[in-house]
Amino acid sequence: MVQQPLIYTAKVCPYAQRSLIALEEAGVKYDRYDIDLADKPSVYNERVNSASKVPVLVLNPSDSADNGGVTKDKGTVKLPESLVISEYIGEEYQSAGLLPKRRRAKARYYIERFSHIFGPPWILLLYRGKADSLPSLLSAISTFQLWLSPTSGSEDSGPFVFGKQYTLADLAIAPFIGRLIFFSKRGILDPLGGGDVHKALTGGDDIFARVAQWWEAVSTRRSWKSTFNEDIIYKAAKTRQEKVLAERQVGKQ
Amino acid sequence: MVQQPLIYTAKVCPYAQRSLIALEEAGVKYDRYDIDLADKPSVYNERVNSASKVPVLVLNPSDSADNGGVTKDKGTVKLPESLVISEYIGEEYQSAGLLPKRRRAKARYYIERFSHIFGPPWILLLYRGKADSLPSLLSAISTFQLWLSPTSGSEDSGPFVFGKQYTLADLAIAPFIGRLIFFSKRGILDPLGGGDVHKALTGGDDIFARVAQWWEAVSTRRSWKSTFNEDIIYKAAKTRQEKVLAERQVGKQ
Repeated sequence: MVQQPLIYTAKVCPYAQRSLIALEEAGVKYDRYDIDLADKPSVYNERVNSASKVPVLVLNPSDSADNGGVTKDKGTVKLPESLVISEYIGEEYQSAGLLPKRRRAKARYYIERFSHIFGPPWILLLYRGKADSLPSLLSAISTFQLWLSPTSGSEDSGPFVFGKQYTLADLAIAPFIGRLIFFSKRGILDPLGGGDVHKALTGGDDIFARVAQWWEAVSTRRSWKSTFNEDIIYKAAKTRQEKVLAERQVGKQ
Repeated sequence: MVQQPLIYTAKVCPYAQRSLIALEEAGVKYDRYDIDLADKPSVYNERVNSASKVPVLVLNPSDSADNGGVTKDKGTVKLPESLVISEYIGEEYQSAGLLPKRRRAKARYYIERFSHIFGPPWILLLYRGKADSLPSLLSAISTFQLWLSPTSGSEDSGPFVFGKQYTLADLAIAPFIGRLIFFSKRGILDPLGGGDVHKALTGGDDIFARVAQWWEAVSTRRSWKSTFNEDIIYKAAKTRQEKVLAERQVGKQ
């Protein structure tokens, strides 16, 4: 008997959110098991993912313990990595339109390139407290904006990356730009000079007008709202930031 | 009129080799344009890839200059990133079997995971001259070996990752393990303590017996032999190593 899939996830994790959005967009019924990343169950690495990361999608989960990684046990398959999971869902539930045939190669390129240019300054800003990473993040978002379809004038006009169809490119990038906007709005970026970033990215700055339209369309979808846990994400970011800034202060003395 | 694709590539680049292997395995007729990575044409970034990297696959190339990145100009599409290109070829030429339906998610996971565990020590070893990265590389190859199909006893028996079918998982990982073996064989790893690695990985050590079988099967394929340029790769590695070791020597004084 094929059972509904189970996903190991964490409310704070942008990668895990990608996979949750994919499941929601595809209308898949699934069970979820939330992992506290700061205090993982001792058997998680051994039984679920030897890489010790979320998300992991478990297909046809059984009650028995399984060995780690991508393994089969009585029909059970465990699939780690957010994009691997999202691609799998896009292929298995094609009617959701996450992987349109003529656009999937471009979508994959955009995701790869965005990760490459946004990821390093993102880590420096949030995990090292480096305020001077902010311009690089905004530059990455400017590049992203060049990829967005026009908002009028053709059948492929916005609001999403590829026009009217919400795809893998939108869901893979949204958890990162979304957190930047949210952290700015909630004051997390104030000590880092990013207090106004959310205004610029949500319509206050003509330079980012197309990103603002994209973000409005993405963040009002049910798939976003049901997978973005404001309070938990805020609390985790605040705690981390206090620690990072305290360490930087110590480093300066 | 649809013209045959053109690939911007470089003989020394393992990423570019992935895409060339995919083209060869799929039997695609293509033109190639070799880029000297140490002395790129001044218009490469502007016209071909703003990220300044190879490979880039150009579909329906025109004679006119194009703007950079993933853009269209009179039907021309430029697609960067080795895995994006390989996936595209796997999907467009399904008869090559590079992306078998039931295995593609696992293949993507293996590629992602292997890059994650092999990449960093590989960079440290070759670009920083850190001999103590060697155990991490061999550990990554041990993990890879766990993923390889058994060599007998089932319909999915070896020699490849997924049995008798050569897939994306084989072609994405081979350029890296292949270079490790080759650099060891040609003495490049002697000063780094890796002189015997090639023997261990090609049958001299029972611990890596399954990797040795895989490597024998992969490296005797026409797609490997026609895309791996021993002399050029050796020369580039030797030059780089002399520079790295000289810099390390200076650093010690």
